Amino acid sequence: MTAPGLYLDRVRQKQPLVHNITNYVTANDVANLLLAVGARPIMADDPAEAAQITAGCDALHLNLGTLSSRTVPSLLSAGQAANRLGHPVVLDPVGVGASDFRAKTARELLKTVKFSAVRGNISEIRTLAALHSAAHGVDADPADAITEDRMDAAKDLIRSFARRTGAVIAVTGAVDLVADGQRCFVVRGGRPEMGRVTGTGCQLSALTAAFLAANPDEPLEAVTAAVCAMDLAGELGWDRLAPGEGNMAYRDRIIDSIYHMTGSQLEKGARFALE
Amino acid sequence: MTAPGLYLDRVRQKQPLVHNITNYVTANDVANLLLAVGARPIMADDPAEAAQITAGCDALHLNLGTLSSRTVPSLLSAGQAANRLGHPVVLDPVGVGASDFRAKTARELLKTVKFSAVRGNISEIRTLAALHSAAHGVDADPADAITEDRMDAAKDLIRSFARRTGAVIAVTGAVDLVADGQRCFVVRGGRPEMGRVTGTGCQLSALTAAFLAANPDEPLEAVTAAVCAMDLAGELGWDRLAPGEGNMAYRDRIIDSIYHMTGSQLEKGARFALE
Amino acid sequence: MTAPGLYLDRVRQKQPLVHNITNYVTANDVANLLLAVGARPIMADDPAEAAQITAGCDALHLNLGTLSSRTVPSLLSAGQAANRLGHPVVLDPVGVGASDFRAKTARELLKTVKFSAVRGNISEIRTLAALHSAAHGVDADPADAITEDRMDAAKDLIRSFARRTGAVIAVTGAVDLVADGQRCFVVRGGRPEMGRVTGTGCQLSALTAAFLAANPDEPLEAVTAAVCAMDLAGELGWDRLAPGEGNMAYRDRIIDSIYHMTGSQLEKGARFALE
Repeated sequence: MTAPGLYLDRVRQKQPLVHNITNYVTANDVANLLLAVGARPIMADDPAEAAQITAGCDALHLNLGTLSSRTVPSLLSAGQAANRLGHPVVLDPVGVGASDFRAKTARELLKTVKFSAVRGNISEIRTLAALHSAAHGVDADPADAITEDRMDAAKDLIRSFARRTGAVIAVTGAVDLVADGQRCFVVRGGRPEMGRVTGTGCQLSALTAAFLAANPDEPLEAVTAAVCAMDLAGELGWDRLAPGEGNMAYRDRIIDSIYHMTGSQLEKGARFALE
Repeated sequence: MTAPGLYLDRVRQKQPLVHNITNYVTANDVANLLLAVGARPIMADDPAEAAQITAGCDALHLNLGTLSSRTVPSLLSAGQAANRLGHPVVLDPVGVGASDFRAKTARELLKTVKFSAVRGNISEIRTLAALHSAAHGVDADPADAITEDRMDAAKDLIRSFARRTGAVIAVTGAVDLVADGQRCFVVRGGRPEMGRVTGTGCQLSALTAAFLAANPDEPLEAVTAAVCAMDLAGELGWDRLAPGEGNMAYRDRIIDSIYHMTGSQLEKGARFALE
Repeated sequence: MTAPGLYLDRVRQKQPLVHNITNYVTANDVANLLLAVGARPIMADDPAEAAQITAGCDALHLNLGTLSSRTVPSLLSAGQAANRLGHPVVLDPVGVGASDFRAKTARELLKTVKFSAVRGNISEIRTLAALHSAAHGVDADPADAITEDRMDAAKDLIRSFARRTGAVIAVTGAVDLVADGQRCFVVRGGRPEMGRVTGTGCQLSALTAAFLAANPDEPLEAVTAAVCAMDLAGELGWDRLAPGEGNMAYRDRIIDSIYHMTGSQLEKGARFALE
């Protein structure tokens, strides 16, 4: 990838309309993040309209947080509609290891929808990849953490998962890995305190959908650029915190940093490498 | 209208309880906006309680964002209960042009509920008024934008729609129009950047319900005053943004400006005219 | 209680995973509040997974805001699963007096789930305790307010309710009362303006679940410490407001104050007494 800033510039030019079928905990932040980057959000999760809404959009973001039996048919029909139309589809398997219901839904999605990208923490991606997982709740299990030691194993895991699904796989955490079947970008950035803000993962998944819509020919680079942008926003937002400000102020600062981020700022601040 | 500030003062005095059947993306902001203006929010959308909750409130706000088959019966039963009790009912037809499901639901609502006011962007109102519409997603289509050129056509449209429905129709955008069957107020104010904050429209619809509850005898003036208040909050909030702050800080500043807005401040800042 | 700060310190050490079946209006704030105090939130409300999610958590928070027929079975099955596993369960009966549906659900919950704590405003607790109530909406009825005059009657009410249910009962308002069947703590603190921020009650209920999970042997003290922490956050957050800031800024400042609150700060700021 030569210039991550270009991928951001294209999002601002194209202003993609992103359909989100997502949880009610972070839906507001996801909508504002998309507006911040210059994309346009629509949330619609009823089976009576999910596929039709998708048809009018440029990209689809499916998120398993607060998963509901009511909307599982929406995830499937919207995903399949997006596939027919050639729209990028991003899966965020929130807490997939936490219940059989989420696991079953994720399996069904992986079987019937072709994803352009899957973004999760390492525990979620491990579970998805049908490996042993100690995932509980929606946070990554510390035992799963990607360290420099275990980097090679993690890379192998996600490259193999990417190869089998045809999706770009993004694992985010202290170190981020973004891989297709061949190549793997390692992104170092962000702040550990982003984990104290609910929904930064959901926001990144939606951002990924926007980047894919605006950069359809280079999915691996597009996803990597989205990851770099979120990491940089986490750093810039942190630097802008005043004394006494905590995770709520930080939440706003991260999104506000995306709002003001320019292509050249991302160009300078992105820290990624093909390793 | 002589004194828009009076209409705000009455909201603060009466503290109306507003029942919202609304989307989960912006429900928190809607609740805080109502609390900011001195009204009291309740959100309840289950068919098992919607009509009863409405009966205990002073006004009803029905919003089609994240529309669900589960709650369509709630929209209908609450709307009809409010009609029986003579409570004001406001419709916000979010994204009504984006799916047959939303269009069908809106038609059913218009057929069986008498609305005191309908507030939407020009594309939504055009769709509702059964005219040709190019609406996609939940934003207004730029091709629909009200310009000084096309102002007369837009006024005719909404006055005719107001006459047919008996509702005050509010179209908000770069220029806002508020009409009943006879008169049309033009409101100039707000900031284009309000479109980069999710839910400012939903907030205004809820605010409209509060203003109608506190000013039942002058619905056109009440809705116009609510539109002026939101526009002014958008201007005041913008002026209070610090460098580096974006749409998240702006979201908070708008609601905080409503929190502190006095009748006399609105009196001076409202820019409306009967044209 | 000797040292409320200790109870907070234990939350930060244990980092309990709290399962919330809660309303979509304030779910984001609840999640961020739990992250602020060092706990970990998960929201999951589908009957297909509610009990299993609870089994993987340390505490359960059931909240009746935006109650849905779809999730009533989840409240019941998760509550019963938590009981079997010995996890603390907190009930927040939001607006229980506002509809027969909420009252019926609350009754069923009280019959089939053993609660560790119930937290509500005085109108909600009165309704729950099957006394006459004038509750409308989700705010406390001013006629119910706990004043120094009526304190004894309120104490008797909640002690008796605590005795019958085995739960710690927390009534929050201008003065807060926290009682088990024998003892009653009176907490004086907080700010009346907290009532202008939606969801501070929901946040406290979730916080209570976290405190109970980390302090299982002293439930009365744990709940009282949680109430003191929220009150103190309301005071600290208020002191940090800049001119022109309103209820949205205040919302963030309260949670940010929890983020930075230390055990010794709570130790000094808590104002409670066994009366």
